Amino acid sequence: MERETFRRYGHQVVDWVADYLEDVERYPVLSPVVPGEVQKQLPREPPVTGEPMDKILADFRDIIVPGVTHWNHPRFFAYFPANNSGPSILGELLSAALGINAMVWQTCPAATELEELVMDWLRQMLGLPERFRGVIQDTASTGTLCALVCARERVTGFRVNAHGFAAGTEGGTLRVYTSQEGHSSVEKDAKIAGFGAENVVRVEVDEAYAMDPRDLEQRIVADQRTGLRPCCIVATVGTTSSTAIDPLTPIASVAERYGLWLHVDAALAGSAAILPEKRWILQGIEGVDSFVFNPHKWLFTNFDCSAYFTRDPETLIRALSVLPEYLKTDLDRHVTNYRDWGIQLGRRFRALKLWFVLRSYGVQGLQQRLREHIALAEEFRTWVEASEHFELLAPVPLNTICFRFHPRAEAEDELSDEKLDQLNKALLDEVNASGRIYITHTRLGGRFTLRFCVGQTQTRREHVIEGWECIRNARVVRARIESGDKGHDGC
Amino acid sequence: MERETFRRYGHQVVDWVADYLEDVERYPVLSPVVPGEVQKQLPREPPVTGEPMDKILADFRDIIVPGVTHWNHPRFFAYFPANNSGPSILGELLSAALGINAMVWQTCPAATELEELVMDWLRQMLGLPERFRGVIQDTASTGTLCALVCARERVTGFRVNAHGFAAGTEGGTLRVYTSQEGHSSVEKDAKIAGFGAENVVRVEVDEAYAMDPRDLEQRIVADQRTGLRPCCIVATVGTTSSTAIDPLTPIASVAERYGLWLHVDAALAGSAAILPEKRWILQGIEGVDSFVFNPHKWLFTNFDCSAYFTRDPETLIRALSVLPEYLKTDLDRHVTNYRDWGIQLGRRFRALKLWFVLRSYGVQGLQQRLREHIALAEEFRTWVEASEHFELLAPVPLNTICFRFHPRAEAEDELSDEKLDQLNKALLDEVNASGRIYITHTRLGGRFTLRFCVGQTQTRREHVIEGWECIRNARVVRARIESGDKGHDGC
Repeated sequence: MERETFRRYGHQVVDWVADYLEDVERYPVLSPVVPGEVQKQLPREPPVTGEPMDKILADFRDIIVPGVTHWNHPRFFAYFPANNSGPSILGELLSAALGINAMVWQTCPAATELEELVMDWLRQMLGLPERFRGVIQDTASTGTLCALVCARERVTGFRVNAHGFAAGTEGGTLRVYTSQEGHSSVEKDAKIAGFGAENVVRVEVDEAYAMDPRDLEQRIVADQRTGLRPCCIVATVGTTSSTAIDPLTPIASVAERYGLWLHVDAALAGSAAILPEKRWILQGIEGVDSFVFNPHKWLFTNFDCSAYFTRDPETLIRALSVLPEYLKTDLDRHVTNYRDWGIQLGRRFRALKLWFVLRSYGVQGLQQRLREHIALAEEFRTWVEASEHFELLAPVPLNTICFRFHPRAEAEDELSDEKLDQLNKALLDEVNASGRIYITHTRLGGRFTLRFCVGQTQTRREHVIEGWECIRNARVVRARIESGDKGHDGC
Repeated sequence: MERETFRRYGHQVVDWVADYLEDVERYPVLSPVVPGEVQKQLPREPPVTGEPMDKILADFRDIIVPGVTHWNHPRFFAYFPANNSGPSILGELLSAALGINAMVWQTCPAATELEELVMDWLRQMLGLPERFRGVIQDTASTGTLCALVCARERVTGFRVNAHGFAAGTEGGTLRVYTSQEGHSSVEKDAKIAGFGAENVVRVEVDEAYAMDPRDLEQRIVADQRTGLRPCCIVATVGTTSSTAIDPLTPIASVAERYGLWLHVDAALAGSAAILPEKRWILQGIEGVDSFVFNPHKWLFTNFDCSAYFTRDPETLIRALSVLPEYLKTDLDRHVTNYRDWGIQLGRRFRALKLWFVLRSYGVQGLQQRLREHIALAEEFRTWVEASEHFELLAPVPLNTICFRFHPRAEAEDELSDEKLDQLNKALLDEVNASGRIYITHTRLGGRFTLRFCVGQTQTRREHVIEGWECIRNARVVRARIESGDKGHDGC
């Protein structure tokens, strides 16, 4: 593509993006397409000759965009945010254009040095201990996999890496502990790294769905008694279901006492530690071996960008180093070669977009946006609590509200949990089909639970109000309750 | 960032990229900075308040760009290409702006359906069997890790996933076979997945550095005799050092005979299979269980985009599935949820840039560029062969020439391999320090070997000529040989 062609279409695409980001509210949040609808509009065979960019961009607009679920939408309250920003997109564009592979320092010195720098900026912003060193990974799943491998190798003296699991674990089957609310990636990573799903011990949670450190210790002791070998604890700061905060101080004491690796998965919630008033979520962090959180979730840096920190980089590097001749450089002893800090050999220049975001917002700018999100979630919580037909199902320490519809009409008998599950599933389906908002569900204490997560870049009070209106005016809700306001039916 | 601000800076960045791509030749290929040089120009603490985008972009140009090693440079002949293109960059820009997470179909139907489609386009382009299903991964390292996990689980009846390595491998220690020239990721992935480095068996190579299938079979038989359990073969189509092509047909026979999973790492070379005249590199592919190649290496799609295919998606999905409540959707039985096809839960919309590239070039356009690269490599090979002072160290089936400087001046005694290693290391350092070209090295048969890899988007004959001139006019070379042409000294 010639310079002027790239320039012309580049400007066109930038214009489309500028309009999209500003007008994204006009789209349904959840794509209304049915399975196969996108594919059937596209040819099943690749084009023999090149097609003009005008046609490709037209197809993008006409076929792809209607099949997009808009994570950027200010009324996207599903899962977790994958928030984004103009500076981040510009950084990603430059990173794509440079097209470098930062596998070793020499293959792009600026990428390695900027990564070290911005990771240290994040360390300072979150108040992590000075000895923590950082690396950018793609996702928290991969970060947790790295942590499990480090735990395995430190506990076995690097014998699994050398000899394999069977020979390396003669001292007993290795065990991993996470709470009942720990993320699915812990089990998946334990399978990948050879621990086996049944060696992931699910520790009891308290009434706030946070790990119970006493139960943790009891399970470790019980395992030791039966000849099993405790290896790793994965604590969660901000569980996926309800942003429950596992208490790091007592958990770190347990880890210390029994010589376990302690990893913290703070994928969503970690960003909140840039707020002094929320710094308590990381209390005890100095006793943690590794820690991961995702700027691509709630720090305005587009997916993917996951920040992995460790106080023990030597174990990480030793566990993941391989050095074939063709990757050796003269400077290997003097520089950071991030190739040895993760699963993949190839590495994108992710630090660039993060640097753009941190500089463009500044720490105060980021703090302000997070405070707004948290205040909006607070307000939504008060609406749920004030409503006699909805109930809160978990505390709201940050930006996610777990609740359900629970009609209390006098004429009705108390509804069974099974019936309530059905009602809430119907409510979920109705509001999502409306295209006005997108929320998702989980189960807490066995109950079908609606989640409302506030964190998109453009989400303001009006959007949260509309979300609540949409939910309480849904037909499923209005069919069940007698409300004074008859003027509004449906979301 | 407001719409008009984004538009203004977006246009600026696009203009910079357009100029950069066209003028990249003006930069030194290998960044001349010394360790720490980039970092010391940047503040050690994050900015408290936001900074203007003008300043950020100025710092990008003045501090970051001088620290970049230019993988896009037409005289980048190092490692492997990470080639790139205008359509790919535009696709990546749109993907960054949409900012979706394609973890399940519902979270972005268009991303999943387009990924299925373009992966099938690639399947057709490479002539892979119809039953092969594809998924986009980040890198071949991750693809090979998936393959090792699949192999492990199929051979053990999914017992490692369930019970862990020790209990799951009572039938004997699992063994992985790759050639002496197999990629470092095989060993790294074998460590991560719990096999252990010493259970990666390095099979002998023939004089072309391709795996010897007889030695493979002998090692499998020997392992079985001693109670070890053969599990997986990783064949390489296009080794990193010399693009040697392991013969898939006899290797697949061995895999079939002994019930092993056969994975093929064709990270660089796979793209060449879009050429009918190079399709032979995949002869025997119908006997392969999984296959990975990187469009981000040699198919004009910017890093990262790795294409993983398998004829047994059920094993992949079963090995990597986890289904917590919060990820369930009503459509799970009717759609592809790529979450279960790889290590990570979160997934970018990588199919978009690949679709832009395939459509913009068309199959013939891609074939033409690859043919040009291969013809240029051919020509470089003839120059090496014709020179009495250089020698070829491996066959050149595709785009990479392995050679060394070997002066034959009459006055001198034959040089030892050790002395030749030193000479060639000095030559490598000299040409790379010049900034005019960037080449890297490997070892073949113990000898320090220079690699010259042709594959960048903008590389034309003039650049390859300049590369050869730079090498043969290096001071290290001219100090050793008597040449008629004295007019030129140094690269």
